[in-house]
Amino acid sequence: MKRPVTLGLVQMAMGPDRETNVERGFALARQARERGADLIVFPELFSGRFFCRELDPRHTALAESVPGPLCDRLAGLARELEAVVVGSLFERVRDGVYFNTAVVLERDGTLLGRSRKMHIPMDPGYLEKYYFTPGDTDYPVFRTSLLDLAVPTCWDQWFPEPARIYGLKGAELIVYPSAIGTLPGDPYDDAVDTWRVAMRGHAVCNALYVAAVNRVGDEGGMTFYGHTFVAQPDGRVIAEAGEDEQVLLARLDPDRIARTRTLSLFYRDRRPETYRDLLRQVAESEPPMEA
Amino acid sequence: MKRPVTLGLVQMAMGPDRETNVERGFALARQARERGADLIVFPELFSGRFFCRELDPRHTALAESVPGPLCDRLAGLARELEAVVVGSLFERVRDGVYFNTAVVLERDGTLLGRSRKMHIPMDPGYLEKYYFTPGDTDYPVFRTSLLDLAVPTCWDQWFPEPARIYGLKGAELIVYPSAIGTLPGDPYDDAVDTWRVAMRGHAVCNALYVAAVNRVGDEGGMTFYGHTFVAQPDGRVIAEAGEDEQVLLARLDPDRIARTRTLSLFYRDRRPETYRDLLRQVAESEPPMEA
Repeated sequence: MKRPVTLGLVQMAMGPDRETNVERGFALARQARERGADLIVFPELFSGRFFCRELDPRHTALAESVPGPLCDRLAGLARELEAVVVGSLFERVRDGVYFNTAVVLERDGTLLGRSRKMHIPMDPGYLEKYYFTPGDTDYPVFRTSLLDLAVPTCWDQWFPEPARIYGLKGAELIVYPSAIGTLPGDPYDDAVDTWRVAMRGHAVCNALYVAAVNRVGDEGGMTFYGHTFVAQPDGRVIAEAGEDEQVLLARLDPDRIARTRTLSLFYRDRRPETYRDLLRQVAESEPPMEA
Repeated sequence: MKRPVTLGLVQMAMGPDRETNVERGFALARQARERGADLIVFPELFSGRFFCRELDPRHTALAESVPGPLCDRLAGLARELEAVVVGSLFERVRDGVYFNTAVVLERDGTLLGRSRKMHIPMDPGYLEKYYFTPGDTDYPVFRTSLLDLAVPTCWDQWFPEPARIYGLKGAELIVYPSAIGTLPGDPYDDAVDTWRVAMRGHAVCNALYVAAVNRVGDEGGMTFYGHTFVAQPDGRVIAEAGEDEQVLLARLDPDRIARTRTLSLFYRDRRPETYRDLLRQVAESEPPMEA
């Protein structure tokens, strides 16, 4: 990260028509660019309503290849705006093999790569294990012209492991395209704060910027809660949206990352030789020494 | 965790005299017990001032064996109060081999085990790498009569790896005996919030209770900032102290852990086969597929 970067996060509501959604998203991206953004990120699966709330094989017809129609349009937008663009789409590899994928486009429209959602939920309203194969892209960090960037997706945000791996690979910003909200009767006390605290913790423990860009609006009983935000490397929230459509801007400062990492030398003191249990699904405690 | 547990955290200031400190700590523990605490935890190295702020071989004379004098007194306190007690002490194994160790005493005074600080800092004010061998106790979870308990120490709190390993081993509460504060001229914007957010994040990602018990007071230019707190499994702070000596109480509810874990099925969706880089000190990103 050579100089400060202005991040533009497109918090938007989606309607039933795909073309309208893409055009609306692109219009908001142009606004972001006019206001100074040079890195623009869309919410998860931003071209349509959140089809994962129901289990219907017909939705697989929405999937497309990468490169492919939407990816190419995102490349055109990157070229038009001379901005790095991150889009999220339903990726089709072949019949029966689909991923939930973020693509990264350089300012000249080059496709730098893709990052497939690694952790797939299956919860009321999020029937994603039906649609998506768990990602096989490992945890790529994209060396863009602006900064070193990681683009995991939504549910990945609850897991400390990806955030740590991105940190070990030198990521300066982790941004999570998201689609998260509430269903009627959800028993959470403060869902937004819980969601944000998990990611603010990643920012602190790994000394990097963390952001999430969410959709808003009601979609057949689900209310997507927005609250797109950016946290700096000490965990402080430096920009936050409400629950309306908007472009959220934040300035990311490379000096702050360096300063935080040398103040809090966490990377120096890790003890990987003691972390073997992280590679297990469950672990047992040794009997205590005094037993 | 069979029934709710009342946690009592002893936030205290330390003077120059060891006997006075121990008696003061025990008096606060008795207060905690009278107010209902059945699990009582002391701050890091609570029997004395924080000697790690200077580098002096004479301080090694403070170290003692486990079991040993302070450990035995803690056992007596546990027996007297019929409470589970966690103490933190400077453990001597032999000349030149010392650990920063938390001990867990059952309600009948039995020494359940010890947990040696795994991550050792070396920063202005915290010259700990001079005194302490990095812990060799792995990450024990103690099956106490009250709940399944992990007792890492201070600097361990900044690392997501231990918190996750405790979660994988079924811990219901992680409590960090701590000694953390500020030095004149510290450049942190909001040190307390950064510290708390890291641990609140551990609570959310691992769906368990997290607490830290800190010392207070000025010790030769270092100001220990207290702010002992307890966070529930959704990250919400349910009890928090200021910067004065006090006993902080919190009620921990077993049903809340179960409810949170089944609402947010993070443990179901981990992908350990993709986490190999966590066992490295640094990692490299694969070249992007499209390169």
